[in-house]
Amino acid sequence: MAISVGQYLLERLKDYGVEHIFGVPGDYNLSFLDLIEDDPDLEWIGNCNELNASYAADGYARIKPMGALLTTFGVGELSAINGVAGSYAESVPVVKIVGMPSRNVLENKRFVHHTLGDGEFMKFYAMYQGISVAQTILNKQNAKSEIDRVLAECALHKKPVYIGIPADVPHMQIEVSSPMLYKPKSDKKNLNAFIGAVKKSLKTYKSFIALADYEVNRYHLNQELHDFIEATNLPIASLSMGKGVFCEQHPNFIGVYNGILSDERITNAIKESDCNILIGVKLTDSLTAGFHYICEEPTPKIEIHPLYSKIGEKVYSDILMQDVLKKLSTLKFESKMPSKEPKEKPHFSGKLTQKQFFKVIEGHLQPNGVLIAEQGTSFFGAIDVNLPKGTSFIGQPLWGSIGYTFGALLGSALADRKRRNVLLVGDGSLQITAQELSTMLRENITPIILVINNDGYTVERCIHGPERKYNDINMWHYTKLLEAFDVHLHRKPLSFKVDTAESLSHALEQAYSHPDKLALIEVGMARDDAPTLLKKLGELFSAQNSY
Amino acid sequence: MAISVGQYLLERLKDYGVEHIFGVPGDYNLSFLDLIEDDPDLEWIGNCNELNASYAADGYARIKPMGALLTTFGVGELSAINGVAGSYAESVPVVKIVGMPSRNVLENKRFVHHTLGDGEFMKFYAMYQGISVAQTILNKQNAKSEIDRVLAECALHKKPVYIGIPADVPHMQIEVSSPMLYKPKSDKKNLNAFIGAVKKSLKTYKSFIALADYEVNRYHLNQELHDFIEATNLPIASLSMGKGVFCEQHPNFIGVYNGILSDERITNAIKESDCNILIGVKLTDSLTAGFHYICEEPTPKIEIHPLYSKIGEKVYSDILMQDVLKKLSTLKFESKMPSKEPKEKPHFSGKLTQKQFFKVIEGHLQPNGVLIAEQGTSFFGAIDVNLPKGTSFIGQPLWGSIGYTFGALLGSALADRKRRNVLLVGDGSLQITAQELSTMLRENITPIILVINNDGYTVERCIHGPERKYNDINMWHYTKLLEAFDVHLHRKPLSFKVDTAESLSHALEQAYSHPDKLALIEVGMARDDAPTLLKKLGELFSAQNSY
Repeated sequence: MAISVGQYLLERLKDYGVEHIFGVPGDYNLSFLDLIEDDPDLEWIGNCNELNASYAADGYARIKPMGALLTTFGVGELSAINGVAGSYAESVPVVKIVGMPSRNVLENKRFVHHTLGDGEFMKFYAMYQGISVAQTILNKQNAKSEIDRVLAECALHKKPVYIGIPADVPHMQIEVSSPMLYKPKSDKKNLNAFIGAVKKSLKTYKSFIALADYEVNRYHLNQELHDFIEATNLPIASLSMGKGVFCEQHPNFIGVYNGILSDERITNAIKESDCNILIGVKLTDSLTAGFHYICEEPTPKIEIHPLYSKIGEKVYSDILMQDVLKKLSTLKFESKMPSKEPKEKPHFSGKLTQKQFFKVIEGHLQPNGVLIAEQGTSFFGAIDVNLPKGTSFIGQPLWGSIGYTFGALLGSALADRKRRNVLLVGDGSLQITAQELSTMLRENITPIILVINNDGYTVERCIHGPERKYNDINMWHYTKLLEAFDVHLHRKPLSFKVDTAESLSHALEQAYSHPDKLALIEVGMARDDAPTLLKKLGELFSAQNSY
Repeated sequence: MAISVGQYLLERLKDYGVEHIFGVPGDYNLSFLDLIEDDPDLEWIGNCNELNASYAADGYARIKPMGALLTTFGVGELSAINGVAGSYAESVPVVKIVGMPSRNVLENKRFVHHTLGDGEFMKFYAMYQGISVAQTILNKQNAKSEIDRVLAECALHKKPVYIGIPADVPHMQIEVSSPMLYKPKSDKKNLNAFIGAVKKSLKTYKSFIALADYEVNRYHLNQELHDFIEATNLPIASLSMGKGVFCEQHPNFIGVYNGILSDERITNAIKESDCNILIGVKLTDSLTAGFHYICEEPTPKIEIHPLYSKIGEKVYSDILMQDVLKKLSTLKFESKMPSKEPKEKPHFSGKLTQKQFFKVIEGHLQPNGVLIAEQGTSFFGAIDVNLPKGTSFIGQPLWGSIGYTFGALLGSALADRKRRNVLLVGDGSLQITAQELSTMLRENITPIILVINNDGYTVERCIHGPERKYNDINMWHYTKLLEAFDVHLHRKPLSFKVDTAESLSHALEQAYSHPDKLALIEVGMARDDAPTLLKKLGELFSAQNSY
């Protein structure tokens, strides 16, 4: 079959589940953009800038199987690189496409715009090598095999890949046969060896506990995890990077693990376990109270990852998490389910506190939505919010780029328009990426956006310099952004300014009763208030910086 | 003398003329920020985001001798990398400082936040190697020598340098002696050889013309260039990247060179010249109508660069532009001054056109200001604006990152509060970096900002896809940004919406008569209108992309 290089790339992206492409036009990607605009099964989402586009593609790829992002050469791809690095750090499958100068310019090493003026065209490709698992530059000869290869790597590793298309290439015709869609398979020998080793450990250890994290989300193995817990009746905690990985309403769910800052129920469960089953877990400072673990002596552990598993130092390669979980479901793990403390009743009076804020949020969240929490007070407060059934949670605790969630919200909301997205974001973070509100209004998505206005970078005040001026920001009229960022406002958005639990509740009720409208709620809170977890973690991070 | 590592860096930055440091706080740079905030001779300018900060540092370093930019590790430095790459491309001396995790974290390869979670801490340093002339990571042992070395490289090459400071290092005490401030010197033998070669060419060629560009601005050699032209009486054109390099009111100034798109006066002068003296010139596509030169056979040329010069293929190293210009001033170059055509009288009626717009701007600009023009309609229209005496011009035609000028304006206005800054920026560009208006209002700078509202990416429409939807943007209420971005508005800014030459004139009069107020002028123009130069260049760029 004859097809253009650009169209073949689009067909393969659609095979992998891509329906929207994010980015900013630039003169080296315009002919490729023609193909996107003309494709009835794809939607081009032009962003206000490339950083926001990269965050949107990341948010999209946390809900859908894959995300895609198009920029121009040099200027565009470098503005997006922070977002793509975040996708690499947190294992999100984003395809970064770059329109490059034509081959005539490249081969003649011409000093053209959007370059360093030195005839070098591979410097930005080299930068992306550090934050992507596969890279290519397409031409007529390699387009078919390279597009197949690079997208397969993206799908396999759930990490970004980089595709450069010189401006003269998108419309070149090539011959293609139908692609072989590769499905990973477990190595049977290794799988049996691993299951055998786990069986052995059943005799050694008397009490198991499961800890699940983000890799389960990325490989969309939540149902498989659910079945495993149902079959084994293990108590299960999540780590905060994978919050929502397991239904928080399920009787076996015991909470979110946070190292020594975990609540009593998890602390006791960890102390009583003599073997931890880690499912899709990476232990980073933000998830472990800065590497302060509950037990001084490390507890023996079984690690299950998407493409390999591990007991002690022994790695069992090429075995898939879904196969491992299925096989392990037939084994009998001993465990003790920790007793549940009754939650203290919140008091709702006076000015809104951080503690009250998250309680009110918890009381209003509805099932099957998406909760997005910005790294900062929002994330560390949201950890303790008990999520309703079917809720996805998006945060970025490893890469932790402030402003990320506001772009990610655009992507996650477009990925499934039927799910209501709720964003918790601080004022300092919002200011980084605020203009993307314009794109949200244009695209008629209808999230509920809660902007915590507490006059600055609270997460940093918790770490260092609580009274320092550098942690102040200029205060905005957040609700006035709506009018400034869209002259049309076709679907009149809702806006609220609240500073008590009662007014916040009222605003949330209004927002939920208007599923067809975007709602912006500015939430006033005291400058020096923060979730308890963040206050304690701030002290530990401060110590981490000082030696 | 005993001093902390961080304070020594600040002292040396001050030696090089830095009085403001731009950036965003992040937990690995907070202890260094304490030192900046406590230094009475430095001002910390906290930006809304790191990209904007990098543009501000660039704009600052185009007016002052050096700029400085501080971010945190990973997330912060990658958000800034596009701006720093622009400084590299266009030779702007910006010191990029990065707060890194502490050595304890680095040496133990810990999986901490703001990293890729892989124990690798040199990937971002490696990315910056491609866009900076010197890099270092400071510790107690190397701080003195490395700070001296890296800043000297920045000052010598007028290109960015990269300094990493682990979080535990800024307050460490070191012993320092007073630094040796290196002053570059010409190699006398090479200088004499070069002057001898030029003398020889005086016999060969009958008509010389001077073309001056951005390198003269970067090395602040405008006075030396002026003296050279006064002494030799050569006709001089500038290239658009160095517009303003030579006084545009001077009788020897003949206009801005643009390859085959140059006006008749320059075209004739170039045709009549049999030797071109290029002073601080780099020939890129944007400056040469996409490498379409006036003469088919390349005219012989003498090239004078800041640190070397060149005749034909022969390079004379280690000779300084200022010494070369001084020596050449004593020679007698033959030349023909092209006659000056009377400029056509503009017609000002009906809706404002692009042509009228730039004529009105030209009529209102006052001496000793700074004119900043965004790459797009603004830049290509501004090329033909005859600048009043003492005007600096800022544009970015090589790197061409849209949104750049809005950040750069913050930096250039802070660099010298006594000069009135006038920005010409399109709507699509403004949306990329719009939130920095907040910082402008907080810092009480008082530029005149002209936002061209013509519903999208006009520069791209000129190249490809004039009717394509991807070149549309969401329309904003630009003047409403003022209220949204600052609850205080201490110095009530002025705002105007204009769409005729008359109303534009009125707004500019008002703005100039209030030097203590920021003025935002939204200028409505037709979607398909563009400066003639840009329309023609768009066609040439389109051809450049298609083969």
